[in-house]
Amino acid sequence: MSGARNITAALRRARVPRPSLAIRTVQFITPLTARTFSASSTRTSDSRQIKFTSDAYPNLKRNPNFAEISADDVAHFKELLGSQSAVIDGVTTDATDDIEPFNSDWMRKYRGHTRLVLKPKDAQEVSKVLRYCNERKLAVVPQGGNTGLVGGSVPVFDEIVINTSRMNQIRSFDAASGVLVADAGVILETADQYLAEREHLFPLDLGAKGSCHIGGNVSTNAGGLRLLRYGSLHGSVLGLEAVLPDGTIVDALSTLRKNNTGYDLKQLFIGSEGTIGLVTAVSIQCPPRPKAVNVAYFGLESFEQVQQAYLAAKSQLSEILSAFELMDGRSQKLVIESTGNKHPLEGEYPFYCLVETSGSNAEHDMAKLESFLESVMGDGIVADGVLAQDETQFQALWRWREGITESLSHLGGTYKYDVSIPLSDLYLLVEDCKALLTEKGLVGDDDSFPVRAVVGYGHMGDSNLHLNVAVRQYSKEVEKAIEPWVYEWIQKRQGSISAEHGLGVAKREFIGYSQNETMVKLMKQLKNLYDPNGIMNPYKYI
Amino acid sequence: MSGARNITAALRRARVPRPSLAIRTVQFITPLTARTFSASSTRTSDSRQIKFTSDAYPNLKRNPNFAEISADDVAHFKELLGSQSAVIDGVTTDATDDIEPFNSDWMRKYRGHTRLVLKPKDAQEVSKVLRYCNERKLAVVPQGGNTGLVGGSVPVFDEIVINTSRMNQIRSFDAASGVLVADAGVILETADQYLAEREHLFPLDLGAKGSCHIGGNVSTNAGGLRLLRYGSLHGSVLGLEAVLPDGTIVDALSTLRKNNTGYDLKQLFIGSEGTIGLVTAVSIQCPPRPKAVNVAYFGLESFEQVQQAYLAAKSQLSEILSAFELMDGRSQKLVIESTGNKHPLEGEYPFYCLVETSGSNAEHDMAKLESFLESVMGDGIVADGVLAQDETQFQALWRWREGITESLSHLGGTYKYDVSIPLSDLYLLVEDCKALLTEKGLVGDDDSFPVRAVVGYGHMGDSNLHLNVAVRQYSKEVEKAIEPWVYEWIQKRQGSISAEHGLGVAKREFIGYSQNETMVKLMKQLKNLYDPNGIMNPYKYI
Repeated sequence: MSGARNITAALRRARVPRPSLAIRTVQFITPLTARTFSASSTRTSDSRQIKFTSDAYPNLKRNPNFAEISADDVAHFKELLGSQSAVIDGVTTDATDDIEPFNSDWMRKYRGHTRLVLKPKDAQEVSKVLRYCNERKLAVVPQGGNTGLVGGSVPVFDEIVINTSRMNQIRSFDAASGVLVADAGVILETADQYLAEREHLFPLDLGAKGSCHIGGNVSTNAGGLRLLRYGSLHGSVLGLEAVLPDGTIVDALSTLRKNNTGYDLKQLFIGSEGTIGLVTAVSIQCPPRPKAVNVAYFGLESFEQVQQAYLAAKSQLSEILSAFELMDGRSQKLVIESTGNKHPLEGEYPFYCLVETSGSNAEHDMAKLESFLESVMGDGIVADGVLAQDETQFQALWRWREGITESLSHLGGTYKYDVSIPLSDLYLLVEDCKALLTEKGLVGDDDSFPVRAVVGYGHMGDSNLHLNVAVRQYSKEVEKAIEPWVYEWIQKRQGSISAEHGLGVAKREFIGYSQNETMVKLMKQLKNLYDPNGIMNPYKYI
Repeated sequence: MSGARNITAALRRARVPRPSLAIRTVQFITPLTARTFSASSTRTSDSRQIKFTSDAYPNLKRNPNFAEISADDVAHFKELLGSQSAVIDGVTTDATDDIEPFNSDWMRKYRGHTRLVLKPKDAQEVSKVLRYCNERKLAVVPQGGNTGLVGGSVPVFDEIVINTSRMNQIRSFDAASGVLVADAGVILETADQYLAEREHLFPLDLGAKGSCHIGGNVSTNAGGLRLLRYGSLHGSVLGLEAVLPDGTIVDALSTLRKNNTGYDLKQLFIGSEGTIGLVTAVSIQCPPRPKAVNVAYFGLESFEQVQQAYLAAKSQLSEILSAFELMDGRSQKLVIESTGNKHPLEGEYPFYCLVETSGSNAEHDMAKLESFLESVMGDGIVADGVLAQDETQFQALWRWREGITESLSHLGGTYKYDVSIPLSDLYLLVEDCKALLTEKGLVGDDDSFPVRAVVGYGHMGDSNLHLNVAVRQYSKEVEKAIEPWVYEWIQKRQGSISAEHGLGVAKREFIGYSQNETMVKLMKQLKNLYDPNGIMNPYKYI
């Protein structure tokens, strides 16, 4: 990476005191925008080539209790929602091309048969729509930016898509408390840019930020890149507005940091993937935007050393550590192959890490980061590294992490496993999976092998690995080789089969590997309580 | 405060650059232990002088659906729990003195009529006890350290007390992830000391830490002194083990930071005050213990300036700010009167603030704190201040905040209101309340007036005020003057009538001031789902 400072050389040249080591701090002038994939970019007419979920999962049968959408229903919705653009009608008209993007996911893995998309503009309209659907027993799928990874936001059969894109207003922001109130359909990046102008930060960041909706983030309980620093949405979401299947508007849009007045019901909507109700607005605690942000990227010889580097970062960077990301060598080669970019380090390493600091004092942060780098390099934990020196390099280094998803998408399909595993075993899953698929003769460089690559990367700081098996095309043979093996592997280590992506269709049958029977029974009990007709996002995990 | 550095003088003497301003950083050698009150210290035989809750709230009637405890029941429990010390039997023996401490709260405000205390040793025993009670329709009250402030952990009538004190083991701690798993009955301070030895910190701290149980903290969703920095328990609690009224053991004791596999049911137990189930163990994310902690204490001329100081601290101390506490002049005078201690500042001010920083680099933290103090004093926001120079002074300064509760308790009784209010109006409540009580002729220095003092203090950083009305004795006249006036006042400002203490008996009738009808209805629906016989902590807010 031209111009990025090589840390090894720099540290070798000048040991403490090192006033000459004037590595510049990258100012946090603009928000991270190096998002490469977008749900809309895949919404092209070739979506018809995507296999129907109902074909890929033949054991899924349309629930005969659900009504079929009639022309009368469509007329009712058109009257209800007023604006013509709020209803995409594939029932009484041929709107297949307009509807397809809402039927299929950006990974080209899931595809439904809906013929109706509704875009209500507020909770009142959602309430009317849901009450009607509930009475008529019409199944629905809440959908935000449709950037999910488990098929949770697209229909399987003819469920009506209720899309949140017209609920896209920021309602309020209070600089003293840092509390933002916004509609569910506000795009994450839009919210963050709004906050950037007010010196605050959205406490969630992830690759799909250019497309995903904050309502979808909350419904998925998205984790992302900086959970390590800003915590889970269960902590930062202060309030919610949501609509239950019977049309009840749950107005729990508190903006108070502390509010102990009864059960914290809003928590049930965080991470329940739209199966209990539809989130229409969010109130969220936003931290002050850091004045200085630094990124270092380095290569390591073993996973043992990755762990050592992480513990050193946790201890030494402490309150300014905002991300600690892991990428394996294979994942970085894929990014090189797909982008043609020159890799920032000279040598090749089996592991790479990206460490980000965010703080209020550039000088202090750089001193801490230098001291950390000196210690991990002095102790032989890190083999080589670079430190971003300006905003461009900052973005460029992040792309080595964030570009993996897109690089993988160029290879065909990807079996994605988003899992939590105790730290010491985190990477072992990738090795074991690769060994398994190799043993079965499924991995190879030429087109006769279904699997192109097995890669691992993820949020080291959260013990969250993304195991990705890149295939030339989706095949039952590969899927059967991996599943349920991968879930059994995780269960043995008391991990989670879904860390931050949710269960959706992809893991609908596998919840038992991470939740015991009692928990599943209690979840079903709640589902039945709120959605006795089962109309909310059916055929998914519950 | 002898030896504590006077900031005004120091800053006046030496403007930047100030290498001579060598204010020492207090090292975080020992955990904060300046806890002054203890539930057990009030558990003396004079508890019999405390008015029965059933007399103080004559509209509360014993639910006739509940069975009376029989000698057979006691025999059953004795057989079930084995150890003699696990059952305090006031049914078949005269154990009044032994039982009274479990019947009454430390504030001497609530007192029940229980004749039976059970101390199960694990979730299995709790399960057997609850299943039996549910079948027999025997009402129960879960009780931890009994340090609550709203009468939520003591019986009203003859509910069986299920005390968690024998579930007091730390189960595991993993230094790499910072996850502690501990029984519900572990005392908060014990947990924190255990973590201190392992260079970590319990992410919750509050005045009662020497007595309160972490299970009770979670059931109350306690906020405390450092929520500002370490966030709410809804974010830091990773898992729970709890027992439902029918004996079902909810094993959701995950130690994973990310686990998106279905509904996050554990959240329902956080803050529901033991009305859904009894928490038996907690898994919690603990941050690394800060290597340096500083405390500054200063006087301010107006609440407007308090707000300015807070915003400056939030912006300038940012990631190292760990507490920003507000104390009014009256509260500090009470501490002087009750302790005889010399106040740390020379002059008298209407407002005082305590600012704490916690970080990983003493030098950096001190530089940030000095810069902050210089800016707020240079701008005339802060009138005078001191900075702790060693551990003793650190503890001494904190006692000016933490000692308020005990100082108040020496005056007789206290009507305590723990509320969230938008920051700009935070202190106005104290002024308005004092004006109201003065107008009604209730406040005065001699014994003919029921009210001694109206004081305000609290967690400025969380917009959380503690309004305390100190009375010579509890009286309906005073209570009626304050309530529901205080709740109406808060409702008008979209505040919360309970920020971090819960509702308990104290606010059982007032939930409607902070939650709308739909929310209350949904809460009752959940209560009925999990506890159809209503045996769990009855007569409280739900």
